[in-house]
Amino acid sequence: MRVHFFALSLILPISTLAQTPSVPSKSEVVQYHATLDTVKYVFGVASPVARLKPGNILDANSLDCFGNALQKPGDTFALVKGDNPLTGPFYIEDAEPGDTLIVHILDLQVDGQQGVGTFSPGFGAINATHYTPMLEKEALPEKIWFYPIDHAGRTATFQALDSNYQVKIPLHPFLGCIGVAPANGEARSSIVPAEFGGNMDAPEVSAGNTLYLPVNVSGALFYFGDGHAAMGDGEIAGSAIEVPMKARLQFDLLKGKHTGWPRLENEKEIMAAGIYRPVDDAVRIAFTELVAWIHAGYGLSELDAYELLSKVGKIHLTEMVDPNYVVIASIEKKYLPPKK
Amino acid sequence: MRVHFFALSLILPISTLAQTPSVPSKSEVVQYHATLDTVKYVFGVASPVARLKPGNILDANSLDCFGNALQKPGDTFALVKGDNPLTGPFYIEDAEPGDTLIVHILDLQVDGQQGVGTFSPGFGAINATHYTPMLEKEALPEKIWFYPIDHAGRTATFQALDSNYQVKIPLHPFLGCIGVAPANGEARSSIVPAEFGGNMDAPEVSAGNTLYLPVNVSGALFYFGDGHAAMGDGEIAGSAIEVPMKARLQFDLLKGKHTGWPRLENEKEIMAAGIYRPVDDAVRIAFTELVAWIHAGYGLSELDAYELLSKVGKIHLTEMVDPNYVVIASIEKKYLPPKK
Amino acid sequence: MRVHFFALSLILPISTLAQTPSVPSKSEVVQYHATLDTVKYVFGVASPVARLKPGNILDANSLDCFGNALQKPGDTFALVKGDNPLTGPFYIEDAEPGDTLIVHILDLQVDGQQGVGTFSPGFGAINATHYTPMLEKEALPEKIWFYPIDHAGRTATFQALDSNYQVKIPLHPFLGCIGVAPANGEARSSIVPAEFGGNMDAPEVSAGNTLYLPVNVSGALFYFGDGHAAMGDGEIAGSAIEVPMKARLQFDLLKGKHTGWPRLENEKEIMAAGIYRPVDDAVRIAFTELVAWIHAGYGLSELDAYELLSKVGKIHLTEMVDPNYVVIASIEKKYLPPKK
Amino acid sequence: MRVHFFALSLILPISTLAQTPSVPSKSEVVQYHATLDTVKYVFGVASPVARLKPGNILDANSLDCFGNALQKPGDTFALVKGDNPLTGPFYIEDAEPGDTLIVHILDLQVDGQQGVGTFSPGFGAINATHYTPMLEKEALPEKIWFYPIDHAGRTATFQALDSNYQVKIPLHPFLGCIGVAPANGEARSSIVPAEFGGNMDAPEVSAGNTLYLPVNVSGALFYFGDGHAAMGDGEIAGSAIEVPMKARLQFDLLKGKHTGWPRLENEKEIMAAGIYRPVDDAVRIAFTELVAWIHAGYGLSELDAYELLSKVGKIHLTEMVDPNYVVIASIEKKYLPPKK
Repeated sequence: MRVHFFALSLILPISTLAQTPSVPSKSEVVQYHATLDTVKYVFGVASPVARLKPGNILDANSLDCFGNALQKPGDTFALVKGDNPLTGPFYIEDAEPGDTLIVHILDLQVDGQQGVGTFSPGFGAINATHYTPMLEKEALPEKIWFYPIDHAGRTATFQALDSNYQVKIPLHPFLGCIGVAPANGEARSSIVPAEFGGNMDAPEVSAGNTLYLPVNVSGALFYFGDGHAAMGDGEIAGSAIEVPMKARLQFDLLKGKHTGWPRLENEKEIMAAGIYRPVDDAVRIAFTELVAWIHAGYGLSELDAYELLSKVGKIHLTEMVDPNYVVIASIEKKYLPPKK
Repeated sequence: MRVHFFALSLILPISTLAQTPSVPSKSEVVQYHATLDTVKYVFGVASPVARLKPGNILDANSLDCFGNALQKPGDTFALVKGDNPLTGPFYIEDAEPGDTLIVHILDLQVDGQQGVGTFSPGFGAINATHYTPMLEKEALPEKIWFYPIDHAGRTATFQALDSNYQVKIPLHPFLGCIGVAPANGEARSSIVPAEFGGNMDAPEVSAGNTLYLPVNVSGALFYFGDGHAAMGDGEIAGSAIEVPMKARLQFDLLKGKHTGWPRLENEKEIMAAGIYRPVDDAVRIAFTELVAWIHAGYGLSELDAYELLSKVGKIHLTEMVDPNYVVIASIEKKYLPPKK
Repeated sequence: MRVHFFALSLILPISTLAQTPSVPSKSEVVQYHATLDTVKYVFGVASPVARLKPGNILDANSLDCFGNALQKPGDTFALVKGDNPLTGPFYIEDAEPGDTLIVHILDLQVDGQQGVGTFSPGFGAINATHYTPMLEKEALPEKIWFYPIDHAGRTATFQALDSNYQVKIPLHPFLGCIGVAPANGEARSSIVPAEFGGNMDAPEVSAGNTLYLPVNVSGALFYFGDGHAAMGDGEIAGSAIEVPMKARLQFDLLKGKHTGWPRLENEKEIMAAGIYRPVDDAVRIAFTELVAWIHAGYGLSELDAYELLSKVGKIHLTEMVDPNYVVIASIEKKYLPPKK
Repeated sequence: MRVHFFALSLILPISTLAQTPSVPSKSEVVQYHATLDTVKYVFGVASPVARLKPGNILDANSLDCFGNALQKPGDTFALVKGDNPLTGPFYIEDAEPGDTLIVHILDLQVDGQQGVGTFSPGFGAINATHYTPMLEKEALPEKIWFYPIDHAGRTATFQALDSNYQVKIPLHPFLGCIGVAPANGEARSSIVPAEFGGNMDAPEVSAGNTLYLPVNVSGALFYFGDGHAAMGDGEIAGSAIEVPMKARLQFDLLKGKHTGWPRLENEKEIMAAGIYRPVDDAVRIAFTELVAWIHAGYGLSELDAYELLSKVGKIHLTEMVDPNYVVIASIEKKYLPPKK
């Protein structure tokens, strides 16, 4: 039984977060280079690898989700030390529980010449899995695809394994993992997305967008990793085009205002994440958050906001393969009144 | 207990439907005018209102989902005779169980000067409903919004009820209801989407797209209705911009090939519908169908198709409010090998 | 879009049904013998096979869910004409929409010397199915088990197919299918359970219990079938011990009171059915109905009823294999105040 | 993306655990007294409060789920320091990752004169919650019920808040929380049930039963708490009759065999837990585990085991209110062949 766990978000009116994605003035740049020796596999409390002030910019790299272990045909999962190695944690000065961490995603560049796609038995959206197990005669086999990257043409190339077909896919670099230490003393695997962000596999975590995350511990303890060169909705076979990444991120804080769930924003849209299972509940979380945001931030009544979203809202199911599923609900700002 | 119900789709290899959305040569035009006296409220076997040959074009109208009963502020749901009145059924000559009905959506025009949006307690994606009931202190109130249509500017205007805000929304006319008589002797309310199509609330059912439906009874018995001038993903408050519609549709048949679930196609994409609850299962249906389509129609192995979809596939959750939920999974043809 | 479909149950306070399972005085007995030529495969409007007055008793038989087609090792599903053949419909005089049909289950006797259990690919709780499809390398094979019935000892015997093991299982005869014509002009396959009852596969539908069903059309149009000699919770492999049955049922009416969902009652318990997917929603339906029943029938406040159920309520997941899933929520009457 | 996370349970044949709940010979008794100063709120790695050898018996107490803070009418949740305070962790000598921890529940005694039941807005099975949020006009109010315990009569008494009704409920003492440190470096709130056990709220965790838990870290790090005097299926309003508890537990180890999910056993039954959302997936986990157990431990083929469970298996939905839901699937041993 419980009563306190979610008390804040339930007893208070749903977050009245009024985002101001202003450009910070203090733009000191912190450089950090992650290696297999320094990565983490859990979103939780750990010794910071670096400290940044609000306004600071971070230039850092991430390994791919296999720790860069799969390099050529014949390589197998036995070479992989752990999934989704995370760069971090980074301690953000002055971040305290109850604040919101603002992450401006300034730039993302694929850090290598190829990407990797895999199918692992027991993981995926339309095969038997750990959490949706099925009796079956024989499991589907493990598979690995390699995707040459053309940086100039900004494409990756899919090469079929069972036929002689290949096709180019436009690059859309984003971070599959981005998050902070969870609340309530929890530590979560880098496979898991939840209230703290984590393995959201959201293409919205791309250059030009701003991410809002709840601060649950002093310093926030920010992590990122799991770079993707491109991905389909739902990441249905369980992988994107998995790549090492170079990231340029700028941090800021919203003091004394707490976002219950991750949110995103850019010039054109506001976006609320819902993260759970089944997808139905992820949708419910995302839209109750978006209604609350529109009501608190733009002044429409809750029912007017609900109606307007029923006419122009968007739903993006980013992944349906991780331990929790992720939905991003959004609305274009052109449909909203001026911000309060 | 059962064994036969779904035997066809399970024992045979998943549909090898190879769509050929060719333009029919015999383009006789059948005119039909629906009124409140001739509409139906059930997808099932009923006397046809007209007969068409494959290749024929149908010009017909549909009433809005309230039978055009809500016209001005102060009107209430008490005026509504039935939900989603359907135009039809139309008997398609030569259509037999085991065939696929091809519906080319040639043109859709909003048939009136305003649209209607409503919130009804017990219906919606983020409030207590008939199938997801909740104890609550008091239900949310019934609400009606009217949307003036600007045909020249191709917009509808949202006017908030609780504040003085209004904004224009671009028109995207489509049919919320489109389907045939169900299999197994069933008859389903016009509120329900399922294998036979029905209340899919899919914006993909718009001019320029071709819809494939399974034929379950002689003549197929085609129905349509529930025109929408525009709609957000998920139709989350339970309504789109509800309008009467004028539709121009052309029919064709794929003899001896049966689509298990509705599919759509246009110049650029192939699209498979998955229709059930929870959303997770709708996604599973849509993507197993799309993998099967790519495998049978374009020659990729199932695992290569799965991998490619994980990189470039799209998911559209069209509605999460009707008795079943609807997902459209799609891939752009530019990513596929030549059709077999 | 819709508004009226479920209006009754939503706008009115949740059913105030105050059941009175009194013993009717007029106990005329109607005999009826069903054969493969007279059975139906759909719950819907059809010509009645007999008419009964409230208080009358029906003595009738049902075929097993395979139409008695599987009789010995080597028989295959190809012999089966249709699933869940239904005995009926029976027209109940004076039953009108808005009433509740009361069915006293007086006696059930297995009508044969053996039962049948089957596994069909695509049907079951822990394998890939029509509505939860999965990519798989190869489907599990079709299987049939025969269960000799010992009427004197009241057991059926399980004989393993892949080893030399057998064990006796106590008989608990019940009707897998029991229901009436659906509302809204719908007709539903005999595979489907829903608001009208149908393929609930509920062991609670056994001798000594009383079932309440909503009347949706004049005469109610009552059907039954799919006898089970015994069944595990969830009917997880997709079948019970399937048998022909002899049933003795007595009908009564509750005029002018409508049960939204099937309910059951006996000397010791009141029981409310919730029928939908996922199981979570079936549980929500069953318990909101049970809270409403306790509140309206026994006078506890809704929150006191909720609390009491949290301490002594029972949940029975009867099946998780049909197109909808079925949960029976119950409470022993000894925990309730006197009936109002 | 990921590949390794669940690799063990997926690549190996599903656990071949062959339980031997023998009585250990070394029955040294370790006494421990928990207080509000020593309890934990997370299942994770922490300094052990005591060490036990396999075979040892632990005599220890637990606080109630509110830390014993709610004692009389007028007390409010503001007095509660944290939910589900845990006694522990206890270090079990010789326990290593890959082993199974065996916990014999020898005795449980309610440690006080009253129990507490509560309703908290945002928590429950049939009201809007943190993970199934709903727009609503106003949240249901917070409520607290007190249950006097009659130790001699072995009952607790429900007293309605809104009327003058009271009724006695038989005691069935069990531990709502019981578990070990999670795998993969995770730490989980004491509100959460998962593979490591945790807040399973399973009445099967009662005197006379044996629990099997996976060992994920050296010493296993065992915790327990959240005593319940009695509880209804599903714990639907979010609480049981919450009590402090005195527990007598005996530990043993199964070296080199790992249970993927918690299992239980007594003289009469074997029981497998499935823990996730939606309930459908919890059922799938529980039954795939139980089929595997029967196959590996008792020699039936997987399909024979599936069939037999479809005839005599039991499903217990223990709770549908915590962040994950819990199902216990079971079969009586009398239906099984001799253990291999």
